[in-house]
Amino acid sequence: MHANDGPDGVIDTLVRVARVVLEAPPVPPVAVGIAVAAQVDPATGLVVHAPNLHWQNVPLGPRVAEALGLPVQVVNDARAATIAEWRLGAGRDESDLFCLILGTGVGGSAVVGGRLVEGATSAAGEVGHLTLVSGGRPCHCPNRGCFEAYVGGWGIAERAQEAVRDPATPPSAIQSRAGSVKKITARTVFDAADDGDPLAVRLVEETERYLADGAVSVVNAFNPRRLVIGGGLVAGHPRFVAVAEQAVRSRCQPSAATASVLPARFGEEAPLIGAAVHARERTTVSPELRQSAER
Amino acid sequence: MHANDGPDGVIDTLVRVARVVLEAPPVPPVAVGIAVAAQVDPATGLVVHAPNLHWQNVPLGPRVAEALGLPVQVVNDARAATIAEWRLGAGRDESDLFCLILGTGVGGSAVVGGRLVEGATSAAGEVGHLTLVSGGRPCHCPNRGCFEAYVGGWGIAERAQEAVRDPATPPSAIQSRAGSVKKITARTVFDAADDGDPLAVRLVEETERYLADGAVSVVNAFNPRRLVIGGGLVAGHPRFVAVAEQAVRSRCQPSAATASVLPARFGEEAPLIGAAVHARERTTVSPELRQSAER
Repeated sequence: MHANDGPDGVIDTLVRVARVVLEAPPVPPVAVGIAVAAQVDPATGLVVHAPNLHWQNVPLGPRVAEALGLPVQVVNDARAATIAEWRLGAGRDESDLFCLILGTGVGGSAVVGGRLVEGATSAAGEVGHLTLVSGGRPCHCPNRGCFEAYVGGWGIAERAQEAVRDPATPPSAIQSRAGSVKKITARTVFDAADDGDPLAVRLVEETERYLADGAVSVVNAFNPRRLVIGGGLVAGHPRFVAVAEQAVRSRCQPSAATASVLPARFGEEAPLIGAAVHARERTTVSPELRQSAER
Repeated sequence: MHANDGPDGVIDTLVRVARVVLEAPPVPPVAVGIAVAAQVDPATGLVVHAPNLHWQNVPLGPRVAEALGLPVQVVNDARAATIAEWRLGAGRDESDLFCLILGTGVGGSAVVGGRLVEGATSAAGEVGHLTLVSGGRPCHCPNRGCFEAYVGGWGIAERAQEAVRDPATPPSAIQSRAGSVKKITARTVFDAADDGDPLAVRLVEETERYLADGAVSVVNAFNPRRLVIGGGLVAGHPRFVAVAEQAVRSRCQPSAATASVLPARFGEEAPLIGAAVHARERTTVSPELRQSAER
């Protein structure tokens, strides 16, 4: 399945794969959950806007529901990851939780007073677009200086590419590892830093400073009891969790600085798990079926 | 009543004034609400930390309750102002609301899904301590580059004082208006800008840029349907509301950018009104007394 296939191609593939899984499920399926990197209308299952898929107003939920004959719940991927951590992972049983997801972008979602924070258009928790550097680097969104433009995977890659292209920069292992400037990713930078490449080390240190600024902002604004940090970047650079903890402890307001900071339990599969949990919670099923599904 | 009187002096004065008011009330009082610029434990009425009063762990609620023989609810001032706007003002009947208070500091509070967002230690919504300028000006809190260090009344005053003290700055109406550098306030800067003083105009324009950055952050993070902007600074510079609206419209994520931006209905009295509404809502009263109070 590829974004270039457009909504029809993606939905066809998705339905085909789901049918294979549903043919021999371990328990009778009661609902289908879909996590998608998009602004979603949870009530209707509409994908309102998915910048990376180039989708606008695609009725993903209804189309999959019709094809599979099962109720479908569509949920934003960062929100789904938060549900996974909240229900089953590092945020289990916590009524005031923020889950910060550091991946290609920076996302997040809050649980406050035992409830998931949705917001007016289901976009609350999009802390990747907090301004961290007034007038700073352009973001993929209409703002400048966003958290994600410095700490997201694409932001790290872009900063590294610019540094390598700068004629004043001495040759760096970043470029030799990547092969070409365009192929530099956050991963290349972390690996080169592990090998002691000075430019990579500097870039990682800068990224840690921006992460610290962002973590302080998130904890001051949402006042969670627990901050859970997950996403692909944390897998590549686990020190991010300790950096965030140190910043929260020393730079947050005294009332907020007591938040515990933990790595997420789930990795790439967090959105899948959260989407499934969410779909089951939101779907009314007969007591018999639920009993059977829980055995 | 003055902060220098310490908790005992302040509480004595507060109780004396309350007794005068309670002697001849328009309706029988059922409860007392107190708004205070502090971190508060709403369950116990404890003032945990009030930086400007230099209070730590003062049992304000219980002491006033004992003296007056009435139930007392203590609430943070920005939260009280939000309650006033939400129940009776510019945020009336709105289930997803953020109220941003621009005063000496920058405070705020959110209503999400029809509920006030409290947070783990009742400090959620403290957006004055979002990092807006990574590594920027020191704040009164342990962080640097906070929203409030640029846009709060004290931040504006401090920036103006530094600019005036700089030997490279030509003489400015800011200083001549204030009499001395130490007496410069945000008000002096606004007044001098209204008179066209170039330094004051520059400072106000910079403040507007930082406010725009902060408003974008708040709306992206909390995704309110309505952003209400109040506090003493808005009275002094009403253009702040239009500046925030323009920024939200043009720089927020598409899903969040539809938020309406409105000036607060209430001025300085907002925390008082909100504290009273809050106390009434949180106090169980007999149906007869409530009926009488509502007449």
